Amino acid sequence: MNATEKPASGLAINLATIREQFGFAEAVEACAALGITWVAPWRDQVARTGLRDAATILRQNGVRATGYCRGGMFPAADAAARAAAIEDNKRALEEAATVEARCLVLVVGTLPSGSRDLPATRQMVADGLATLLPLARAAGMPLAIEPLHPVYAGDRACINTISQALDLCDALGEGIGIILDTYHTWWDPDLPRQIARAGSRILGHHISDFLVPTRDLLSDRGMMGDGVIDFISYRRLVEAAGYAGPQEVEIFSTEWWGRPGREVLDTCLARYRAVC
Amino acid sequence: MNATEKPASGLAINLATIREQFGFAEAVEACAALGITWVAPWRDQVARTGLRDAATILRQNGVRATGYCRGGMFPAADAAARAAAIEDNKRALEEAATVEARCLVLVVGTLPSGSRDLPATRQMVADGLATLLPLARAAGMPLAIEPLHPVYAGDRACINTISQALDLCDALGEGIGIILDTYHTWWDPDLPRQIARAGSRILGHHISDFLVPTRDLLSDRGMMGDGVIDFISYRRLVEAAGYAGPQEVEIFSTEWWGRPGREVLDTCLARYRAVC
Repeated sequence: MNATEKPASGLAINLATIREQFGFAEAVEACAALGITWVAPWRDQVARTGLRDAATILRQNGVRATGYCRGGMFPAADAAARAAAIEDNKRALEEAATVEARCLVLVVGTLPSGSRDLPATRQMVADGLATLLPLARAAGMPLAIEPLHPVYAGDRACINTISQALDLCDALGEGIGIILDTYHTWWDPDLPRQIARAGSRILGHHISDFLVPTRDLLSDRGMMGDGVIDFISYRRLVEAAGYAGPQEVEIFSTEWWGRPGREVLDTCLARYRAVC
Repeated sequence: MNATEKPASGLAINLATIREQFGFAEAVEACAALGITWVAPWRDQVARTGLRDAATILRQNGVRATGYCRGGMFPAADAAARAAAIEDNKRALEEAATVEARCLVLVVGTLPSGSRDLPATRQMVADGLATLLPLARAAGMPLAIEPLHPVYAGDRACINTISQALDLCDALGEGIGIILDTYHTWWDPDLPRQIARAGSRILGHHISDFLVPTRDLLSDRGMMGDGVIDFISYRRLVEAAGYAGPQEVEIFSTEWWGRPGREVLDTCLARYRAVC
């Protein structure tokens, strides 16, 4: 390794990036072999492996969990379904604690089927967070709201800007913060001010590129350097705000899922060093 | 017509909506036949018809032009190309004046090829607007910035929120305002406050629906009622801000372009009355 190269320990791999190629153990081992000491596990992967076994696999490979993916999805058409969502989030908190994740990542959810009432839906999210937060504090597990790109406001998440997420954090107090994802937020005209405002609320820094054209809204995210995002300027804002954790590659991409997992990891590391 | 029905004169048709079915004269005549007295013409349509003939066709049918589509596209890699863009915008102003449009609609453009510098690109837009505005004032033709959905920040427009557009208007003074398009702005958590702030800056109110799922980013916009937007709440905000002009249907959709033009117009009118 070139002495001036950024160490692989500054990189995290969100396991969604290689979910089609590798099972959980294989993915963790492949990361460890490259000196990558952070991964973000997903609940379905952990469930297939077994929760205790997943924790053991991480420990034995010297790999730690960044954000546990994922909780959230608070809005629902009736109170029973909203209560069930809270119960599911409680289990996610317990799992996150077992794998010793740094936080529980929340994709907050959006309009219940048939609803067009975005303000009421956003209130359901605020209510869900207020219910979950005391449990998260008791578990010692920070909650991390991930604001999603406005293009997902209709089907994934109704928290769509950093400012909106931070307003919720300010209202809720300690134990909750945000994930900054370049893909979701790069376009924001208020980006420098909001990242500075976020400060110690920043619980994760996700990276993937925005491709032009984007052929599919769910599975055409880009490898860093292949799209239009200025990662270095973004990273400087995040560092200036005080975040010193890893940059986490999270790429949902039919194209990258179709390549060998080792090639994907090598490319993540090379691009992290070259353009991030 | 039912006495309680909203009159067709409250509806405008952006001619992009029926561009595959009708030539300019045919489109204007079809609208007039339904009592629709407002259309938004596009430069390519007007060029094929001839500028003077287009103005005559509108006048003879008792149809007026809302926003002339379109100017903008200010950013470019070098000064010569940026100057050429200004020249093209001057011609667009003259055309808009000839068809007696209410304003010149601006899609402002974004990153020049190869650039990832969004702040510098946004400055190019501010500079372009500052250059064009005195000419627009002299022509008596208001400029209307259309903030586009953040999903177009990489390939269409780097003005992506109402707030950002209004900040530019505030800096530039009289003679410039904005287009509020439901498709581009429905997700905005700051919507009520920003529409109220817009007030007399509102130069147009475009309507189309956001479909879930959206299969194509350029040509899968929805007919009002087929997606997730609450048009009535949006319209109430716009009216409360003081805007009293027509609601303008602008739908880019492979599906609707594939249906008979008259059916599309009938549907626009029916949905305008039912859900807008």
